[in-house]
Amino acid sequence: PDADAYEAARERLRNQARPAGCLGILEDVGARLSGIFGVMDVHLARKVVITCAGDHGICAEGVSLFPQEVTPQMVYNFINGGASINVLAKHAGAAVRVADIGVNHDFEPALPIFHKKVRRGTGNFAIEPAMTRDEARKSVEAGIEIVDELVRESPLHLLGTGDMGIGNTTPSTAIIAAYSGLSVSELTGRGTGVDDEGLRRKISAIERGLALHKPDPRDPLGVLAAVGGLEIGGLAGLVIGAAAHGVPVVCDGFIATAGALIACELAPKAKAYLFASHNSVEIGHAFMLKHLGLQPLLHLEFRLGEGTGAALAMELMDASTRILADIRTFEEVAIQDAQA
Amino acid sequence: PDADAYEAARERLRNQARPAGCLGILEDVGARLSGIFGVMDVHLARKVVITCAGDHGICAEGVSLFPQEVTPQMVYNFINGGASINVLAKHAGAAVRVADIGVNHDFEPALPIFHKKVRRGTGNFAIEPAMTRDEARKSVEAGIEIVDELVRESPLHLLGTGDMGIGNTTPSTAIIAAYSGLSVSELTGRGTGVDDEGLRRKISAIERGLALHKPDPRDPLGVLAAVGGLEIGGLAGLVIGAAAHGVPVVCDGFIATAGALIACELAPKAKAYLFASHNSVEIGHAFMLKHLGLQPLLHLEFRLGEGTGAALAMELMDASTRILADIRTFEEVAIQDAQA
Repeated sequence: PDADAYEAARERLRNQARPAGCLGILEDVGARLSGIFGVMDVHLARKVVITCAGDHGICAEGVSLFPQEVTPQMVYNFINGGASINVLAKHAGAAVRVADIGVNHDFEPALPIFHKKVRRGTGNFAIEPAMTRDEARKSVEAGIEIVDELVRESPLHLLGTGDMGIGNTTPSTAIIAAYSGLSVSELTGRGTGVDDEGLRRKISAIERGLALHKPDPRDPLGVLAAVGGLEIGGLAGLVIGAAAHGVPVVCDGFIATAGALIACELAPKAKAYLFASHNSVEIGHAFMLKHLGLQPLLHLEFRLGEGTGAALAMELMDASTRILADIRTFEEVAIQDAQA
Repeated sequence: PDADAYEAARERLRNQARPAGCLGILEDVGARLSGIFGVMDVHLARKVVITCAGDHGICAEGVSLFPQEVTPQMVYNFINGGASINVLAKHAGAAVRVADIGVNHDFEPALPIFHKKVRRGTGNFAIEPAMTRDEARKSVEAGIEIVDELVRESPLHLLGTGDMGIGNTTPSTAIIAAYSGLSVSELTGRGTGVDDEGLRRKISAIERGLALHKPDPRDPLGVLAAVGGLEIGGLAGLVIGAAAHGVPVVCDGFIATAGALIACELAPKAKAYLFASHNSVEIGHAFMLKHLGLQPLLHLEFRLGEGTGAALAMELMDASTRILADIRTFEEVAIQDAQA
């Protein structure tokens, strides 16, 4: 980002005909976007949400309410346009594109998705690595390639990241445990709604996985390989790819933020392009946001994923660009009064 | 509202192809709007933010950072279209209309505002009543009349309330003190940014006013007359008028919510049509939201007023109608799959 453009934006915000700072956190969002694009009047014309899908061997431990078959079913639902992310992205003026990074299902090559399957689902990380180190790298590269392809199509102004993968709060929680040092039982939430027994199975699976692999937080690709997910690698790659192209990226909830965490551990400068859409009800999300230095825009008790929070947050980010560029300064008001 | 339509909406939300409840507080917002309009597919086509303006005799006590002259200046700024509320309402697809309920300035009759001046500013409630009981009634009626006029123009689907009035966090705090029984020093915030000395003056002014008038919370019009504001009465009238016409109404921050509180004390059934846009940083706002049974949609640290929070919240309310009507149920997904 352009530090001078950021400072010029902060100055304009201070000079607007209103009490300083009274538009809260949207002021800094607008200034950051101004810094990223190097102009005062930012227009987020092309917005795209990428929903990365993958399956999880850890589901064998009974950690999720839904069977793995739901992952490809939801991919088809996204393509048919009637899923939650389609509805919210449309409302935000954003396109939705789905990426298969590791779904346990063969999609027809003609299906209009990003075909980036690294493997059909991860291994059960309670008893084996989720994936090899090479597969982890490939999953991150898949995300980077997707942004390359998007940017090649036409200029991209805002990327949103979202996830689909039955069971994927479990690897996300394992990643956070590796980085936070917080206890698994403290961190583990109910995902999309497991009962007490399911919660116990989830905690046990994560604890066994961490004890088995002892992931080293200084080695983010190693963490991803040991206890991560293929779509989580893809989500990390999206953040890195967006930052590399100078495109702001807003990450969705718990799983997408776990991907963003891996991204910023691999490429710390990506943080400057990253925004957080909402605070999830999932325990551990607050740790990640603090670790990444992000303030979430929405507090709506969303716990769906798919990119739904990112899509809604895009509307507020868009509003922040109008706040910065369109609210008149005291000087502009005086000039208009003199002309009237 | 139509209880059957509300229940049908809740059922549709439960049957959508996603985990139950995962779209958080927007689910209930959508269901409430469905109950208000009596249909599943609500379209908030015509949205209007009314910014009620008034001046405050209490400014003589040095409670505000800005001089009273700023109130009419901002009215002109709203009309010229370059103020914060213009920018945010435009982003939300809403019109902005300004109402003079009690500005200490004579506006030309040709000026395109609602001319509803009850008197030129309130009295200094630290030493005299803010207004007479008759003036308080007239200020509420002004708000009701504005909604009547709006509805007469064309169907109205969502009303937002906003305020402009230098010094108006002071009467709002006095109203909350009367209803909450909480101590004035605990309740009093810095408004648009007074310093420690200003804060002490503000607390002292409110304490003297409450001691002088002893406003009775069972008599909302009496509270408004004793320590209120003309635009606060107008804001109360907007809520009552909207409810009377079956129109949902989203109140802005601290001052607009004080108006909504008076409205719901005068006409408790209005609550069913009321939504809260955001939680203000101003102390006492949380009390009002709890008292009114409202959950705010935004947590952006806004502290401007004008209707800025209401305008942004309209976008989320709009999204809630799409969530309800457009996200497919499991049955609809199955039908589509069968057709494919």
